[in-house]
Amino acid sequence: MALILFDLAAAEDDRRFSPYCWRVKMALRHKNISAETVPWRFTEKDAIAFSGQQLVPVLVDGETVVSDSWEIARYLERKYKDEPSLFGGASGEGTAMFVKFWCEDVLHPAMMHIIVTDIYARLHDKDKAYFRETREARWGCSLESFALPRAESVSLLRIELAPLRAMLQRQPFIAGAHPMFADYIVFGVFQWARSMSPLKLLEPDDPVYQWRGRLLDAFGGFARQAVGYDV
Amino acid sequence: MALILFDLAAAEDDRRFSPYCWRVKMALRHKNISAETVPWRFTEKDAIAFSGQQLVPVLVDGETVVSDSWEIARYLERKYKDEPSLFGGASGEGTAMFVKFWCEDVLHPAMMHIIVTDIYARLHDKDKAYFRETREARWGCSLESFALPRAESVSLLRIELAPLRAMLQRQPFIAGAHPMFADYIVFGVFQWARSMSPLKLLEPDDPVYQWRGRLLDAFGGFARQAVGYDV
Repeated sequence: MALILFDLAAAEDDRRFSPYCWRVKMALRHKNISAETVPWRFTEKDAIAFSGQQLVPVLVDGETVVSDSWEIARYLERKYKDEPSLFGGASGEGTAMFVKFWCEDVLHPAMMHIIVTDIYARLHDKDKAYFRETREARWGCSLESFALPRAESVSLLRIELAPLRAMLQRQPFIAGAHPMFADYIVFGVFQWARSMSPLKLLEPDDPVYQWRGRLLDAFGGFARQAVGYDV
Repeated sequence: MALILFDLAAAEDDRRFSPYCWRVKMALRHKNISAETVPWRFTEKDAIAFSGQQLVPVLVDGETVVSDSWEIARYLERKYKDEPSLFGGASGEGTAMFVKFWCEDVLHPAMMHIIVTDIYARLHDKDKAYFRETREARWGCSLESFALPRAESVSLLRIELAPLRAMLQRQPFIAGAHPMFADYIVFGVFQWARSMSPLKLLEPDDPVYQWRGRLLDAFGGFARQAVGYDV
Protein backbone atom coordinates (compact mmCIF):
# COMPACT_ATOMS: atom_id res chain seq x y z
CA MET A 1 0.00 0.00 0.00
CA ALA A 2 1.30 3.43 -0.92
CA LEU A 3 2.38 5.75 1.85
CA ILE A 4 0.30 8.84 2.56
CA LEU A 5 1.73 12.33 3.05
CA PHE A 6 -0.36 15.22 4.32
CA ASP A 7 0.92 18.16 2.29
CA LEU A 8 0.15 21.85 2.74
CA ALA A 9 -1.91 23.29 -0.14
CA ALA A 10 -2.87 26.82 -1.17
CA ALA A 11 -6.20 27.90 -2.68
CA GLU A 12 -5.84 25.25 -5.38
CA ASP A 13 -5.43 21.66 -4.26
CA ASP A 14 -2.36 21.18 -6.41
CA ARG A 15 -0.38 24.28 -5.32
CA ARG A 16 1.81 22.79 -2.60
CA PHE A 17 4.04 25.30 -0.87
CA SER A 18 5.37 24.08 2.47
CA PRO A 19 9.19 24.06 2.52
CA TYR A 20 9.06 21.28 5.12
CA CYS A 21 6.78 19.14 2.96
CA TRP A 22 9.07 19.71 -0.02
CA ARG A 23 11.97 18.28 1.97
CA VAL A 24 9.96 15.12 2.50
CA LYS A 25 8.67 14.85 -1.06
CA MET A 26 12.25 15.01 -2.38
CA ALA A 27 13.38 12.51 0.27
CA LEU A 28 10.63 10.07 -0.78
CA ARG A 29 11.74 10.30 -4.41
CA HIS A 30 15.35 9.86 -3.33
CA LYS A 31 14.31 6.65 -1.59
CA ASN A 32 12.26 5.49 -4.60
CA ILE A 33 9.11 5.45 -2.49
CA SER A 34 5.65 6.17 -3.87
CA ALA A 35 3.41 8.23 -1.66
CA GLU A 36 -0.05 9.58 -2.15
CA THR A 37 -0.11 13.24 -1.13
CA VAL A 38 -3.23 14.61 0.51
CA PRO A 39 -3.84 18.36 0.22
CA TRP A 40 -4.19 19.88 3.67
CA ARG A 41 -4.78 23.40 4.97
CA PHE A 42 -3.50 25.08 8.13
CA THR A 43 -6.96 25.06 9.69
CA GLU A 44 -7.63 21.37 9.10
CA LYS A 45 -6.19 20.38 12.45
CA ASP A 46 -8.78 17.61 12.90
CA ALA A 47 -7.56 15.80 9.80
CA ILE A 48 -4.12 15.21 11.35
CA ALA A 49 -5.14 14.98 15.01
CA PHE A 50 -4.27 11.26 14.83
CA SER A 51 -0.60 12.30 14.58
CA GLY A 52 -0.69 13.86 18.05
CA GLN A 53 0.31 17.31 16.83
CA GLN A 54 -0.94 20.02 14.51
CA LEU A 55 1.51 20.55 11.66
CA VAL A 56 2.44 18.95 8.37
CA PRO A 57 4.28 17.08 7.01
CA VAL A 58 2.66 13.97 8.45
CA LEU A 59 3.66 10.67 6.90
CA VAL A 60 1.56 7.53 7.26
CA ASP A 61 3.36 4.31 6.44
CA GLY A 62 1.01 1.44 7.22
CA GLU A 63 0.68 1.43 11.00
CA THR A 64 3.39 4.03 11.50
CA VAL A 65 2.71 7.77 11.74
CA VAL A 66 5.61 10.23 11.71
CA SER A 67 5.52 14.02 11.85
CA ASP A 68 8.28 16.65 11.60
CA SER A 69 10.33 16.65 8.40
CA TRP A 70 13.61 15.83 10.16
CA GLU A 71 12.07 12.87 11.98
CA ILE A 72 10.47 11.68 8.77
CA ALA A 73 13.84 11.72 7.00
CA ARG A 74 15.40 9.75 9.87
CA TYR A 75 12.51 7.29 9.76
CA LEU A 76 12.87 6.78 6.00
CA GLU A 77 16.62 6.35 6.33
CA ARG A 78 16.20 3.62 8.95
CA LYS A 79 13.21 1.84 7.47
CA TYR A 80 14.31 1.91 3.82
CA LYS A 81 17.97 1.33 4.46
CA ASP A 82 18.59 -0.55 1.21
CA GLU A 83 17.51 2.47 -0.83
CA PRO A 84 19.96 5.37 -1.48
CA SER A 85 21.02 7.04 1.74
CA LEU A 86 19.66 10.46 2.73
CA PHE A 87 22.54 11.25 5.09
CA GLY A 88 25.52 9.05 4.22
CA GLY A 89 26.10 8.01 7.81
CA ALA A 90 26.18 9.54 11.27
CA SER A 91 28.50 12.45 10.51
CA GLY A 92 26.54 13.36 7.38
CA GLU A 93 23.38 13.40 9.49
CA GLY A 94 25.07 15.47 12.20
CA THR A 95 26.28 18.06 9.76
CA ALA A 96 22.93 18.12 7.92
CA MET A 97 21.46 19.21 11.28
CA PHE A 98 23.64 22.32 11.06
CA VAL A 99 22.34 22.98 7.54
CA LYS A 100 18.79 22.60 8.86
CA PHE A 101 19.27 25.27 11.51
CA TRP A 102 21.15 27.61 9.19
CA CYS A 103 18.27 27.25 6.77
CA GLU A 104 15.58 27.85 9.38
CA ASP A 105 17.34 30.65 11.28
CA VAL A 106 18.79 32.54 8.34
CA LEU A 107 17.15 31.63 5.02
CA HIS A 108 13.54 31.16 6.12
CA PRO A 109 13.18 34.67 7.59
CA ALA A 110 15.09 36.21 4.67
CA MET A 111 12.72 34.51 2.22
CA MET A 112 9.61 35.25 4.27
CA HIS A 113 10.38 38.97 4.14
CA ILE A 114 10.21 38.68 0.34
CA ILE A 115 7.23 36.40 -0.24
CA VAL A 116 4.87 36.88 2.70
CA THR A 117 2.28 38.89 0.78
CA ASP A 118 2.46 36.48 -2.17
CA ILE A 119 1.80 33.62 0.22
CA TYR A 120 -1.13 35.39 1.81
CA ALA A 121 -2.68 36.20 -1.57
CA ARG A 122 -2.60 32.55 -2.67
CA LEU A 123 -3.80 30.87 0.53
CA HIS A 124 -7.14 29.10 0.64
CA ASP A 125 -9.76 31.48 2.02
CA LYS A 126 -10.29 29.26 5.02
CA ASP A 127 -6.62 29.70 6.01
CA LYS A 128 -6.24 33.46 5.61
CA ALA A 129 -7.33 34.55 9.07
CA TYR A 130 -5.30 31.78 10.71
CA PHE A 131 -2.17 32.70 8.79
CA ARG A 132 -2.52 36.39 9.54
CA GLU A 133 -3.22 35.91 13.23
CA THR A 134 -0.49 33.37 13.95
CA ARG A 135 2.21 35.22 11.97
CA GLU A 136 1.32 38.65 13.25
CA ALA A 137 1.45 37.33 16.83
CA ARG A 138 4.82 35.69 16.15
CA TRP A 139 6.37 38.72 14.48
CA GLY A 140 4.67 41.43 16.50
CA CYS A 141 3.70 43.34 13.36
CA SER A 142 1.30 43.12 10.45
CA LEU A 143 2.01 40.90 7.44
CA GLU A 144 2.25 44.06 5.37
CA SER A 145 4.91 45.62 7.57
CA PHE A 146 6.85 42.34 7.81
CA ALA A 147 7.15 42.43 4.03
CA LEU A 148 10.27 44.37 3.06
CA PRO A 149 10.66 46.35 -0.15
CA ARG A 150 11.50 43.78 -2.77
CA ALA A 151 14.73 45.16 -4.16
CA GLU A 152 16.08 45.33 -0.63
CA SER A 153 14.83 41.96 0.56
CA VAL A 154 16.02 40.10 -2.54
CA SER A 155 19.40 41.72 -2.12
CA LEU A 156 19.53 40.60 1.53
CA LEU A 157 18.61 37.04 0.56
CA ARG A 158 21.42 36.95 -1.98
CA ILE A 159 23.86 38.13 0.69
CA GLU A 160 22.71 35.42 3.11
CA LEU A 161 23.28 32.84 0.37
CA ALA A 162 27.01 33.66 0.30
CA PRO A 163 28.23 30.50 2.08
CA LEU A 164 26.07 28.27 -0.11
CA ARG A 165 27.24 30.08 -3.25
CA ALA A 166 30.92 29.80 -2.30
CA MET A 167 30.52 26.11 -1.59
CA LEU A 168 28.71 25.49 -4.89
CA GLN A 169 31.71 26.91 -6.73
CA ARG A 170 33.64 23.93 -5.38
CA GLN A 171 31.11 21.08 -5.58
CA PRO A 172 27.71 20.49 -7.24
CA PHE A 173 25.64 19.73 -4.12
CA ILE A 174 25.73 20.43 -0.38
CA ALA A 175 26.28 16.73 0.25
CA GLY A 176 29.11 16.69 -2.32
CA ALA A 177 28.87 14.92 -5.67
CA HIS A 178 25.23 13.88 -5.22
CA PRO A 179 22.27 15.50 -3.48
CA MET A 180 21.10 14.26 -0.10
CA PHE A 181 18.73 15.48 2.58
CA ALA A 182 20.89 18.55 3.37
CA ASP A 183 20.25 19.68 -0.20
CA TYR A 184 16.51 19.03 0.04
CA ILE A 185 16.32 21.10 3.22
CA VAL A 186 17.62 24.20 1.46
CA PHE A 187 15.84 23.42 -1.81
CA GLY A 188 12.54 23.41 0.11
CA VAL A 189 12.94 27.14 0.72
CA PHE A 190 13.16 27.77 -3.01
CA GLN A 191 10.16 25.55 -3.76
CA TRP A 192 8.18 27.45 -1.14
CA ALA A 193 8.92 30.65 -3.08
CA ARG A 194 8.47 29.08 -6.51
CA SER A 195 5.03 27.76 -5.70
CA MET A 196 3.68 31.06 -4.37
CA SER A 197 5.64 33.99 -5.81
CA PRO A 198 6.27 35.11 -9.40
CA LEU A 199 9.27 37.14 -8.25
CA LYS A 200 12.65 36.36 -9.77
CA LEU A 201 15.04 35.65 -6.89
CA LEU A 202 18.25 34.46 -8.54
CA GLU A 203 20.24 35.36 -11.64
CA PRO A 204 21.05 32.51 -14.06
CA ASP A 205 24.80 33.02 -13.57
CA ASP A 206 24.45 32.44 -9.81
CA PRO A 207 25.78 29.00 -8.75
CA VAL A 208 22.75 28.81 -6.46
CA TYR A 209 20.44 29.16 -9.47
CA GLN A 210 22.31 26.35 -11.23
CA TRP A 211 22.18 24.11 -8.14
CA ARG A 212 18.44 24.78 -7.84
CA GLY A 213 18.10 23.86 -11.52
CA ARG A 214 19.80 20.53 -10.94
CA LEU A 215 17.30 19.75 -8.19
CA LEU A 216 14.35 20.94 -10.27
CA ASP A 217 15.52 18.44 -12.90
CA ALA A 218 16.10 15.59 -10.44
CA PHE A 219 13.77 12.57 -10.46
CA GLY A 220 12.59 13.28 -13.99
CA GLY A 221 11.81 16.94 -13.33
CA PHE A 222 9.52 16.13 -10.40
CA ALA A 223 9.87 19.53 -8.68
CA ARG A 224 9.93 21.51 -11.93
CA GLN A 225 6.58 20.03 -12.93
CA ALA A 226 4.92 21.11 -9.70
CA VAL A 227 2.47 24.00 -9.84
CA GLY A 228 4.39 27.24 -9.44
CA TYR A 229 6.16 30.06 -11.27
CA ASP A 230 8.96 29.32 -13.69
CA VAL A 231 11.33 32.00 -12.40
CA MET B 1 60.04 10.92 11.53
CA ALA B 2 57.54 13.37 12.98
CA LEU B 3 55.58 15.54 10.62
CA ILE B 4 56.29 19.28 10.54
CA LEU B 5 53.63 21.98 10.62
CA PHE B 6 54.42 25.63 9.96
CA ASP B 7 52.19 27.44 12.42
CA LEU B 8 51.49 31.17 12.65
CA ALA B 9 52.93 32.75 15.82
CA ALA B 10 52.50 36.14 17.50
CA ALA B 11 55.22 38.11 19.29
CA GLU B 12 56.00 35.09 21.48
CA ASP B 13 56.94 31.87 19.73
CA ASP B 14 54.34 29.88 21.63
CA ARG B 15 51.32 32.14 21.04
CA ARG B 16 49.76 30.45 18.02
CA PHE B 17 46.70 32.21 16.69
CA SER B 18 45.82 31.17 13.14
CA PRO B 19 42.30 29.71 12.94
CA TYR B 20 43.39 27.69 9.89
CA CYS B 21 46.39 26.23 11.72
CA TRP B 22 44.15 25.35 14.68
CA ARG B 23 41.94 23.31 12.36
CA VAL B 24 44.98 21.30 11.35
CA LYS B 25 46.40 20.90 14.87
CA MET B 26 43.08 19.46 16.04
CA ALA B 27 42.89 17.23 12.95
CA LEU B 28 46.40 15.87 13.66
CA ARG B 29 45.41 15.01 17.24
CA HIS B 30 42.19 13.44 15.96
CA LYS B 31 44.33 11.22 13.73
CA ASN B 32 46.77 10.42 16.56
CA ILE B 33 49.62 11.94 14.59
CA SER B 34 52.59 13.67 16.21
CA ALA B 35 53.79 16.78 14.48
CA GLU B 36 56.49 19.26 15.31
CA THR B 37 55.12 22.77 14.95
CA VAL B 38 57.44 25.49 13.71
CA PRO B 39 56.57 29.08 14.67
CA TRP B 40 56.23 31.20 11.56
CA ARG B 41 55.37 34.83 10.93
CA PHE B 42 53.44 36.44 8.07
CA THR B 43 56.60 38.02 6.66
CA GLU B 44 58.63 34.82 6.61
CA LYS B 45 57.56 33.97 3.09
CA ASP B 46 60.97 32.51 2.25
CA ALA B 47 60.65 29.85 4.94
CA ILE B 48 57.66 28.29 3.18
CA ALA B 49 58.56 29.12 -0.41
CA PHE B 50 59.18 25.39 -0.93
CA SER B 51 55.40 24.88 -0.64
CA GLY B 52 54.78 26.95 -3.77
CA GLN B 53 52.59 29.48 -2.00
CA GLN B 54 52.79 32.02 0.81
CA LEU B 55 50.41 31.05 3.60
CA VAL B 56 50.29 28.67 6.54
CA PRO B 57 49.34 26.03 7.49
CA VAL B 58 51.96 24.08 5.57
CA LEU B 59 52.35 20.43 6.47
CA VAL B 60 55.47 18.44 5.64
CA ASP B 61 55.05 14.69 5.82
CA GLY B 62 58.29 13.12 4.61
CA GLU B 63 58.48 13.91 0.91
CA THR B 64 54.95 15.33 0.78
CA VAL B 65 54.17 19.02 1.23
CA VAL B 66 50.55 20.13 1.59
CA SER B 67 49.18 23.63 2.13
CA ASP B 68 45.63 24.92 2.74
CA SER B 69 43.86 23.58 5.82
CA TRP B 70 41.09 21.91 3.82
CA GLU B 71 43.57 20.13 1.55
CA ILE B 72 45.61 19.09 4.57
CA ALA B 73 42.53 17.52 6.18
CA ARG B 74 41.75 15.66 2.96
CA TYR B 75 45.35 14.50 2.74
CA LEU B 76 45.35 13.24 6.34
CA GLU B 77 42.03 11.47 5.80
CA ARG B 78 43.36 9.62 2.76
CA LYS B 79 46.87 8.90 4.02
CA TYR B 80 45.95 7.89 7.56
CA LYS B 81 42.76 6.08 6.71
CA ASP B 82 43.01 3.57 9.55
CA GLU B 83 42.91 6.35 12.14
CA PRO B 84 39.57 7.94 13.20
CA SER B 85 37.86 9.63 10.27
CA LEU B 86 37.79 13.42 9.96
CA PHE B 87 34.75 13.44 7.66
CA GLY B 88 32.86 10.19 8.02
CA GLY B 89 32.59 9.63 4.29
CA ALA B 90 31.81 11.60 1.15
CA SER B 91 28.60 13.23 2.34
CA GLY B 92 30.17 14.26 5.64
CA GLU B 93 32.99 15.86 3.68
CA GLY B 94 30.56 17.57 1.32
CA THR B 95 28.54 19.03 4.14
CA ALA B 96 31.68 20.05 6.07
CA MET B 97 32.50 22.18 3.02
CA PHE B 98 29.32 24.13 3.69
CA VAL B 99 30.38 24.61 7.32
CA LYS B 100 33.78 25.85 6.08
CA PHE B 101 32.21 28.55 3.93
CA TRP B 102 29.66 29.56 6.56
CA CYS B 103 32.55 29.91 8.97
CA GLU B 104 34.71 31.94 6.60
CA ASP B 105 31.96 34.14 5.16
CA VAL B 106 30.00 34.78 8.34
CA LEU B 107 31.97 34.00 11.51
CA HIS B 108 35.44 35.13 10.47
CA PRO B 109 34.40 38.71 9.65
CA ALA B 110 32.15 38.88 12.73
CA MET B 111 35.07 37.81 14.92
CA MET B 112 37.59 40.02 13.15
CA HIS B 113 35.48 43.09 13.91
CA ILE B 114 35.88 42.22 17.60
CA ILE B 115 39.50 41.17 17.88
CA VAL B 116 41.41 43.03 15.16
CA THR B 117 43.11 45.49 17.50
CA ASP B 118 43.96 42.72 19.98
CA ILE B 119 45.56 40.80 17.14
CA TYR B 120 47.56 43.78 16.01
CA ALA B 121 48.78 44.50 19.53
CA ARG B 122 50.14 40.96 19.97
CA LEU B 123 51.76 40.46 16.57
CA HIS B 124 55.52 40.14 16.26
CA ASP B 125 56.99 43.55 15.43
CA LYS B 126 58.24 42.26 12.11
CA ASP B 127 54.64 41.44 11.08
CA LYS B 128 52.87 44.63 12.12
CA ALA B 129 53.35 46.66 8.95
CA TYR B 130 52.47 43.66 6.77
CA PHE B 131 49.29 42.96 8.69
CA ARG B 132 48.20 46.58 8.63
CA GLU B 133 48.91 47.07 4.93
CA THR B 134 47.31 43.85 3.69
CA ARG B 135 44.18 44.15 5.85
CA GLU B 136 43.67 47.84 5.23
CA ALA B 137 43.94 47.22 1.47
CA ARG B 138 41.46 44.33 1.73
CA TRP B 139 38.92 46.19 3.84
CA GLY B 140 39.39 49.66 2.40
CA CYS B 141 39.67 51.22 5.85
CA SER B 142 42.09 51.40 8.77
CA LEU B 143 42.36 48.59 11.32
CA GLU B 144 41.01 51.01 13.89
CA SER B 145 37.89 51.80 11.90
CA PHE B 146 37.34 48.13 11.00
CA ALA B 147 37.15 47.43 14.74
CA LEU B 148 33.57 47.85 15.92
CA PRO B 149 32.54 48.94 19.41
CA ARG B 150 32.83 45.82 21.52
CA ALA B 151 29.36 45.57 23.00
CA GLU B 152 27.93 45.85 19.51
CA SER B 153 30.35 43.48 17.79
CA VAL B 154 30.04 40.78 20.47
CA SER B 155 26.29 41.05 20.23
CA LEU B 156 26.49 40.63 16.43
CA LEU B 157 28.72 37.58 16.79
CA ARG B 158 26.24 35.97 19.16
CA ILE B 159 23.45 36.58 16.66
CA GLU B 160 25.47 34.99 13.85
CA LEU B 161 26.01 31.94 16.05
CA ALA B 162 22.25 31.25 16.15
CA PRO B 163 22.27 28.22 13.80
CA LEU B 164 25.19 26.65 15.64
CA ARG B 165 23.52 27.29 19.00
CA ALA B 166 20.19 25.81 17.90
CA MET B 167 21.95 22.73 16.57
CA LEU B 168 23.96 22.27 19.76
CA GLN B 169 20.73 22.09 21.71
CA ARG B 170 20.04 18.90 19.78
CA GLN B 171 23.45 17.23 19.57
CA PRO B 172 26.88 17.69 21.21
CA PHE B 173 28.97 18.34 18.10
CA ILE B 174 28.49 19.61 14.55
CA ALA B 175 29.37 16.15 13.25
CA GLY B 176 26.86 14.57 15.66
CA ALA B 177 27.86 12.49 18.67
CA HIS B 178 31.61 12.99 18.17
CA PRO B 179 33.66 15.91 16.86
CA MET B 180 35.09 15.83 13.34
CA PHE B 181 36.73 18.30 11.01
CA ALA B 182 33.55 20.41 10.70
CA ASP B 183 33.83 21.05 14.44
CA TYR B 184 37.52 21.92 14.23
CA ILE B 185 36.81 24.44 11.45
CA VAL B 186 34.48 26.43 13.69
CA PHE B 187 36.54 25.84 16.83
CA GLY B 188 39.52 27.41 15.08
CA VAL B 189 37.71 30.76 15.09
CA PHE B 190 37.40 30.59 18.87
CA GLN B 191 41.04 29.58 19.34
CA TRP B 192 42.05 32.53 17.16
CA ALA B 193 40.22 34.80 19.60
CA ARG B 194 41.33 32.96 22.73
CA SER B 195 45.00 33.20 21.83
CA MET B 196 44.94 36.94 21.16
CA SER B 197 42.07 38.60 23.01
CA PRO B 198 41.18 38.74 26.70
CA LEU B 199 37.60 39.64 25.82
CA LYS B 200 34.82 37.39 27.05
CA LEU B 201 32.79 36.36 24.02
CA LEU B 202 30.32 33.76 25.33
CA GLU B 203 28.26 33.28 28.46
CA PRO B 204 28.66 29.95 30.30
CA ASP B 205 25.00 29.06 29.77
CA ASP B 206 25.41 29.34 25.99
CA PRO B 207 25.46 25.90 24.28
CA VAL B 208 28.25 27.29 22.10
CA TYR B 209 30.37 27.95 25.22
CA GLN B 210 29.78 24.38 26.37
CA TRP B 211 30.65 22.95 22.96
CA ARG B 212 33.83 25.02 22.92
CA GLY B 213 34.61 23.67 26.39
CA ARG B 214 34.29 20.10 25.17
CA LEU B 215 36.79 20.82 22.42
CA LEU B 216 39.14 22.66 24.77
CA ASP B 217 39.11 19.48 26.88
CA ALA B 218 39.57 17.10 23.95
CA PHE B 219 42.85 15.24 23.52
CA GLY B 220 43.81 15.71 27.18
CA GLY B 221 43.11 19.44 27.18
CA PHE B 222 45.44 20.11 24.24
CA ALA B 223 43.77 23.35 23.12
CA ARG B 224 43.07 24.55 26.66
CA GLN B 225 46.74 24.33 27.52
CA ALA B 226 47.78 26.49 24.58
CA VAL B 227 48.93 30.04 25.32
CA GLY B 228 45.90 32.29 25.44
CA TYR B 229 43.28 33.88 27.66
CA ASP B 230 41.03 31.73 29.81
CA VAL B 231 37.80 33.47 28.90
